[in-house]
Amino acid sequence: MKCKVTFYPDNRQVEVEEGENLLRAAMAAEVCISASCGGDGTCGKCRMIIEKGIVEQRSTSRLTTEEIEQGYVLACLSTVKSDLEVKIPPESRLGEFIEREKAPTSHMLSARSWEEHLSSWKKRPQVQKLYIEMSPPTLDDNADDLRRIKRTLSKTHGLKEKMDIDLSVSKYMARVLREASWRVTVTLVESDSHAKIVKVEAGDTTGKNYVVAVDIGTTTVGARLINLSERVAVAQGSDYNAQASCGADVISRMIFSCKKDGLVKLQSLIVNTISELIAKLVSKAGIELSDISCLILAGNTIMTHLLFGLSPKYIREAPYVPTATNFPWIKTKDFGMNILEEVYAYCFPCVASYIGGDVVAGVIASGMSRSNKLTLFIDVGTNGEIVLGNADWLLACSCSAGPAFEGGGVKHGMRATKGAIEQIRIDKDTYEPMILTIGQTKPAGICGSGLIDVLAEMFLNKVVDQRGKINMNIDCPRVRKGKHCPEYVLVWANETANGKDIVVTEVDIDNLIRAKAAVFAGISVLLENASVNVSDIEEIFIAGAFGNYLEIERVQIIGLLPECPFEKVKFVGNGSLAGASLGSLSKEILLEAEEVAEKMAYVELSADAKFMDKYISALFLPHTNVELFPTVMRELKNK
Amino acid sequence: MKCKVTFYPDNRQVEVEEGENLLRAAMAAEVCISASCGGDGTCGKCRMIIEKGIVEQRSTSRLTTEEIEQGYVLACLSTVKSDLEVKIPPESRLGEFIEREKAPTSHMLSARSWEEHLSSWKKRPQVQKLYIEMSPPTLDDNADDLRRIKRTLSKTHGLKEKMDIDLSVSKYMARVLREASWRVTVTLVESDSHAKIVKVEAGDTTGKNYVVAVDIGTTTVGARLINLSERVAVAQGSDYNAQASCGADVISRMIFSCKKDGLVKLQSLIVNTISELIAKLVSKAGIELSDISCLILAGNTIMTHLLFGLSPKYIREAPYVPTATNFPWIKTKDFGMNILEEVYAYCFPCVASYIGGDVVAGVIASGMSRSNKLTLFIDVGTNGEIVLGNADWLLACSCSAGPAFEGGGVKHGMRATKGAIEQIRIDKDTYEPMILTIGQTKPAGICGSGLIDVLAEMFLNKVVDQRGKINMNIDCPRVRKGKHCPEYVLVWANETANGKDIVVTEVDIDNLIRAKAAVFAGISVLLENASVNVSDIEEIFIAGAFGNYLEIERVQIIGLLPECPFEKVKFVGNGSLAGASLGSLSKEILLEAEEVAEKMAYVELSADAKFMDKYISALFLPHTNVELFPTVMRELKNK
Repeated sequence: MKCKVTFYPDNRQVEVEEGENLLRAAMAAEVCISASCGGDGTCGKCRMIIEKGIVEQRSTSRLTTEEIEQGYVLACLSTVKSDLEVKIPPESRLGEFIEREKAPTSHMLSARSWEEHLSSWKKRPQVQKLYIEMSPPTLDDNADDLRRIKRTLSKTHGLKEKMDIDLSVSKYMARVLREASWRVTVTLVESDSHAKIVKVEAGDTTGKNYVVAVDIGTTTVGARLINLSERVAVAQGSDYNAQASCGADVISRMIFSCKKDGLVKLQSLIVNTISELIAKLVSKAGIELSDISCLILAGNTIMTHLLFGLSPKYIREAPYVPTATNFPWIKTKDFGMNILEEVYAYCFPCVASYIGGDVVAGVIASGMSRSNKLTLFIDVGTNGEIVLGNADWLLACSCSAGPAFEGGGVKHGMRATKGAIEQIRIDKDTYEPMILTIGQTKPAGICGSGLIDVLAEMFLNKVVDQRGKINMNIDCPRVRKGKHCPEYVLVWANETANGKDIVVTEVDIDNLIRAKAAVFAGISVLLENASVNVSDIEEIFIAGAFGNYLEIERVQIIGLLPECPFEKVKFVGNGSLAGASLGSLSKEILLEAEEVAEKMAYVELSADAKFMDKYISALFLPHTNVELFPTVMRELKNK
Repeated sequence: MKCKVTFYPDNRQVEVEEGENLLRAAMAAEVCISASCGGDGTCGKCRMIIEKGIVEQRSTSRLTTEEIEQGYVLACLSTVKSDLEVKIPPESRLGEFIEREKAPTSHMLSARSWEEHLSSWKKRPQVQKLYIEMSPPTLDDNADDLRRIKRTLSKTHGLKEKMDIDLSVSKYMARVLREASWRVTVTLVESDSHAKIVKVEAGDTTGKNYVVAVDIGTTTVGARLINLSERVAVAQGSDYNAQASCGADVISRMIFSCKKDGLVKLQSLIVNTISELIAKLVSKAGIELSDISCLILAGNTIMTHLLFGLSPKYIREAPYVPTATNFPWIKTKDFGMNILEEVYAYCFPCVASYIGGDVVAGVIASGMSRSNKLTLFIDVGTNGEIVLGNADWLLACSCSAGPAFEGGGVKHGMRATKGAIEQIRIDKDTYEPMILTIGQTKPAGICGSGLIDVLAEMFLNKVVDQRGKINMNIDCPRVRKGKHCPEYVLVWANETANGKDIVVTEVDIDNLIRAKAAVFAGISVLLENASVNVSDIEEIFIAGAFGNYLEIERVQIIGLLPECPFEKVKFVGNGSLAGASLGSLSKEILLEAEEVAEKMAYVELSADAKFMDKYISALFLPHTNVELFPTVMRELKNK
């Protein structure tokens, strides 16, 4: 029998087989609940309230009698027995989810959160729709149509900006004005002291005012359809960047772009990816393509170059110079986009070759650029992008972490998709691991956050030492000499998707340590350049899809982040998409993005002598200087 | 034997047969010299100085012995006997030519005149080329290419405007910068507080900086290629507007535009005409198309709409409303132009449906918009466009004069081309006419200025009376009863190009009187609306190709213009082309054009009750109220 499970307040629904584990159902519904114990009921984090329907539950000491009476269950110990309505209580969003709730991504979910987050900015979007009713022209008042529109906009909506009109609009405007009896909705792109009329529609269409915010990631492209008049997200989706067929990472894409027709190909691939995503969102939300007023995009510098059709050739060669870091509003047809060709698009400004508009958007979304607190912002992917500062100053650097954090360069690494191991726990006595995979299917490999988890567990349980060497003295079949080097078997062949052992090798661990060392060294250089200490940091934001499934303590155990109280750390989620979404709601935010990009000082690490020293010092777990990680060291001793 | 005759200061050369009349040689060389007596040596206006070579001359009392010793001759009495170098003295440019000398068109001929005319405006063009030498990027200074350009422009040329870049430029810029070792010439379009980079070229190309100024007339398109760095016109040309195949006048073009694909056809025809003209000018001047930095265009409101591909449908229907009167800088490819597709173009702003950018350009070129004097500006063609005012205020109207002034609606009327009679004199005793044709060939018809001349002569010599009726009591074979009405034979069949009599009929005269009455009435309405009298007018500018060959006294005799001292009247020539040319040299002039268009108040005559009264009163020669024309009446009595 199939059961419908609905999760509130997310209002996400999933259909599962009767008997399915409730935690798995939540994961299938993409309702992210921390289950840090791996699902064995010990952490007690995955508390839910059953509002309607029946679950079968195993007993637990983690719930009081009172709570049980109120309907509380632990999801990991509960089995679905009927259609369910399940409420996820706020306190249950401890761990990763409570941070996501605070982060702007989760603000997509309810109108109230938008308002809260936007409270410090003016809520006037750069692209707006204004309804006007004009008096028809007469012989005594025969001002031209454009002037009549401007005049009425000024009178009715107080617009004082100089105004011009898109040529394509002026071609149909006269007809629309008359057919609509001089009652029309004008779409305007406002900038500085200037506004451009980009659409004129019959009647009042201000209710049909949508924007698509897009995060152009190297691997994944995320998009969100936002109803501008109500300031709510109505649909969201993501897909792989189709450019992947020309190379997995930015370096190989740049190489491809220099081949014959390579640049054109890459541009058309990303345009197709975005177009298809938009088409999906539009159909999902049941709106028309013509209801979309603009696109707000954010991507790293290379992705942005490729979208605009600019060669990233010189980004690759020292001294690593982009063609441009600021981009004007342009029509999507200038990207070669067919589906919205007369619609205007804006790309977040970049800072340097390896600090892009995605970071700028993330910084904006985190609130860091308006904060008085000393803040560290980290977006970890192939490149670790690090920003330090506050409302007054911003320092940024980018360190090549290599592909390890995205599951690359690791024997059984994989992207964070179905079948990827994302959480593990290792029993300290038996060295038996417990794993959770994405999509609750047979494990196929280990994703980035899983790798961090595995490394932290192996280190805590002394499977590896500080240098990252596997302890071959452990008497357990999982610890063995592999083909090339020692390895730890995470899953035996009979339990994996492809029927082969999933292992973590010493070489994998070495790659992971290099990756985390690069990020840690980057952070250290920024701190030193700013003459501040780790303890001065008041807030840490972790952005990137990577961050969503990461537990902060794990990150500190391996020394990827400096040790600090957990409560200082917040997850921004997809900061780039969050920033682009917020930017669509406020002209002021887009202006602030330009300012942030302008004032962010870029530290080129390849030109920084200190970086290599700090990198080498960080090639230990958690660090050569263990005094930097007193809590981790204490925990190690207690094990 | 062929003789080369060179005229200074125009530096125009013509090759003529030995024995050719020097005045005809001058006309062949398009050196316009008044010969108001029709070439019989009586007016003495066509004085020239022979600097080299031999002429044979008939004796005249119009030159003193001293003058003859200095080399003075009367061109109409001189015959070319060898190669000649001929100087046209300033005093010889009395009559029509002296006005042209003062008018901006003649300023095209020498650099000095440009400077004089431009003296009241800043000579910084809106489109400029700036050469910069940048320091190459290093690891310590790896600002993006665009930022580096901006920075250097700011440092080297003091540019403080916000700057962005055309997408097409950003696509090739990085390569050019490196190939040119960071020494490049940047082409900028500046507006308000903003500048756009529209071209980046290797090395210093500031010397190759050309603009094409274009007057888009309904009948004729004129273009001038201007070297912006030296501020001189290097080539000029004109051609018929190819749209003529879709209708002779604006009304028929508007009707055509509403047919299926009509608008697209009209746009492509005008774009072709302009493109071909540009190609000719470029080849004439021996430059490259790529040396052209921008296009500055001026045309009437309908021509401007058609160029932009905007339907003029609602201009035709009451209350006669254009889609727009202000137009942004756009790329010529947005007009569908292929030859300069990435080059930006600017169109002079219009005022109303029948007061276009050509009038605004003419007003600017005349200097009226900066003058303290009460000025009347008239551009007479199919529509008479009239502007009254000064630096403080401007009133404009447009009156439909019908096609008579362009040779249309008149039995033997023709355009002002080869073979058109443009000047005549009628002997008061014999009623025998003396004629001068354009191109000194056999007469084929009468052009607009010829028609005014003929009407004035017929009136002065009492061949027609005040009502425009031909006096059939005159005993002369030239005055006869025609097929439908009385007529006057201007040229007998054996002397004409097509072997038929060229006549002026009473119906022709009636059409001419209606045309002049419309213009006079328009002027009267403006004067009344401004509460000023004819005598308050301090300066009168006559624009339009029409004006070039017109003698002011003739215009007053028929009552087209109010009577006023001749010295108040100046001919602007093609004011539209002059304004567009000046506009290409100064951003300030283009800004002033926007201001002029903005402040020019338009009086809709079809809504003005006074107009019809004034029109009816003006259907007399020179006017019902003869007190308005005391000089004309005196002259009539003296005849």
